[in-house]
Amino acid sequence: MIALIFDGTLHLAERVPPIPKEGEALIRVRLAGICNTDLEIIRGYMNFQGIFGHEFVGEVVDCEKKEWVGKRVVGEINLGCGHCQWCLEGLSRHCPNRTTLGIFGKDGVFAEYVTLPIGNLHEVPAFIPDCRVVFTEPIAAAMEILEQVRIEPNWRILIIGDGKLAILMARVLLRMGLDISVVGINQLKLQLFRKSGAKVFLLPEDPSSGYDMVVEASGSPEGWERAMAAVRSRGIIVLKSTYHGNLNWNTAPLVINEITVVGSRCGLFAPALKLLDDSTFETDDLIVAIFPLPAALMAFQRSQEPTTMKVLLGIAPPDEFSGFSVQDMSKFSGLES
Amino acid sequence: MIALIFDGTLHLAERVPPIPKEGEALIRVRLAGICNTDLEIIRGYMNFQGIFGHEFVGEVVDCEKKEWVGKRVVGEINLGCGHCQWCLEGLSRHCPNRTTLGIFGKDGVFAEYVTLPIGNLHEVPAFIPDCRVVFTEPIAAAMEILEQVRIEPNWRILIIGDGKLAILMARVLLRMGLDISVVGINQLKLQLFRKSGAKVFLLPEDPSSGYDMVVEASGSPEGWERAMAAVRSRGIIVLKSTYHGNLNWNTAPLVINEITVVGSRCGLFAPALKLLDDSTFETDDLIVAIFPLPAALMAFQRSQEPTTMKVLLGIAPPDEFSGFSVQDMSKFSGLES
Repeated sequence: MIALIFDGTLHLAERVPPIPKEGEALIRVRLAGICNTDLEIIRGYMNFQGIFGHEFVGEVVDCEKKEWVGKRVVGEINLGCGHCQWCLEGLSRHCPNRTTLGIFGKDGVFAEYVTLPIGNLHEVPAFIPDCRVVFTEPIAAAMEILEQVRIEPNWRILIIGDGKLAILMARVLLRMGLDISVVGINQLKLQLFRKSGAKVFLLPEDPSSGYDMVVEASGSPEGWERAMAAVRSRGIIVLKSTYHGNLNWNTAPLVINEITVVGSRCGLFAPALKLLDDSTFETDDLIVAIFPLPAALMAFQRSQEPTTMKVLLGIAPPDEFSGFSVQDMSKFSGLES
Repeated sequence: MIALIFDGTLHLAERVPPIPKEGEALIRVRLAGICNTDLEIIRGYMNFQGIFGHEFVGEVVDCEKKEWVGKRVVGEINLGCGHCQWCLEGLSRHCPNRTTLGIFGKDGVFAEYVTLPIGNLHEVPAFIPDCRVVFTEPIAAAMEILEQVRIEPNWRILIIGDGKLAILMARVLLRMGLDISVVGINQLKLQLFRKSGAKVFLLPEDPSSGYDMVVEASGSPEGWERAMAAVRSRGIIVLKSTYHGNLNWNTAPLVINEITVVGSRCGLFAPALKLLDDSTFETDDLIVAIFPLPAALMAFQRSQEPTTMKVLLGIAPPDEFSGFSVQDMSKFSGLES
């Protein structure tokens, strides 16, 4: 099979398809998404080497539980040990012995085939096209905030950053009737937020302060400084960004103003799939391009351009994608239109 | 009146007693406590200049509301504007226009007289001696954690630091039946924690990891690193320390392990007074010395010695202290015994 490899350099290679272990399914990948974590991996994050990629929708082609064969699935990305307290409580995403699909210790989805434990799979409801389903993982990450923070209906919330995760978080929170502001660096991307109902601030415009919750998703240390300045006393900063290198800051305001900082990562797939089953939750306008796997290097190049939101990799033959084909990609031009 | 001044150097001076403004009471200070914040102030914290000190018990000598005159009182240290949303919600300690007794914009209690708004005063229940009542403010700060975090009964908690605030937090939490460990640098101080029922670790002994909550009260950046290493996934770090200078750290583990960090400062006085009214909550063993105000420089010297817990300043004539006199101070030698 063809696979996209990172081993210090990014390149395509021919690899033997993986063989499912006991309790695992073999999945043919149909469509995969490029995430910021993937961009970090090719900069050295987690020292990952191998086939990466973790956002996908695919079809089970082999499985000891025959009822799964032929099903269209998405898969949770954390592979827990299945025995520890975390796994028993349904929190395998915090299992200390976990591997993580395409991120840590487990080959990922930028390849024709991937294996995953059956317990990680979710059958996808019919009629949701692949190009929506592929957003399951990042929407789950966006919804993780709701599991961690008891958000009150009258809160004013600031999102710092105008990227892929930021727009999904904005849309999740806007559906709850919340007052959402976004501060970003890209006029075109900010249009997507404005269209979704958020107030937008283009830097160096000042989003002001006094926010009940600030979500830092800019990926830059300046975003952290901005979050500390914008949050009210006793407010909450949700930290979605990991930074390259260290953060250097004065902690006194955090203590004096009794700020709470909540680190936030992966979320549950079931609620994300429920949201995707509602066609009023828009995702198509985030897709700027779909590249076939052999053009993956171009896809990564495109993905790193400043105005780019989501870039997808079409891995199964395009005519089998439900909902669209590569030829349709001209319609996914939310940013350019 | 005699007052202890910090204006770049620490010295005693003769000052005119303050004149109470409308709504304020004039209080004769009986006994005051030296806090770590005071030690930070003489190192330049908050750029405070003037009469400092904020832990005290005193007696109202003048007040427009005559029923207060003659009452023994403690006083909340944050002076809110009284009109903003914070003040109206009883959270004047977060009023953006507040001053803070002996810390920011308001002369403090290391003097014979001090003024405070009547609304800040709490009458002290009879029969609690001054040398206990003077712990009201730091106990309120220790109990602030209970207002901020919903602590579960089966949690394992690690306190980092073996100082004045750490021991009060340990005792507050131990009374709740919680499993408390403490890691510190001073064998003598750690004995107080062990005696109170905590497990103790003398550095470089390793307190291990997996704690549900870690309270960082060491005042050193290494304490922060230690907290991050000791807390479990999805655990809570309560940050009670402010550090000199900046903290430099890698935020990725906070995001990956979904840690919550809670900045924590001042607390409510009423619950602290309730606790002090219960004689099984021990405080006497923390007092290592009581100096009269004219010997304040010696008191500060003593306060900075590594084995010292609490040093008090006796300000009203010693024979008027309820519960003890300066002559009694030999009995407050918990550490030396």
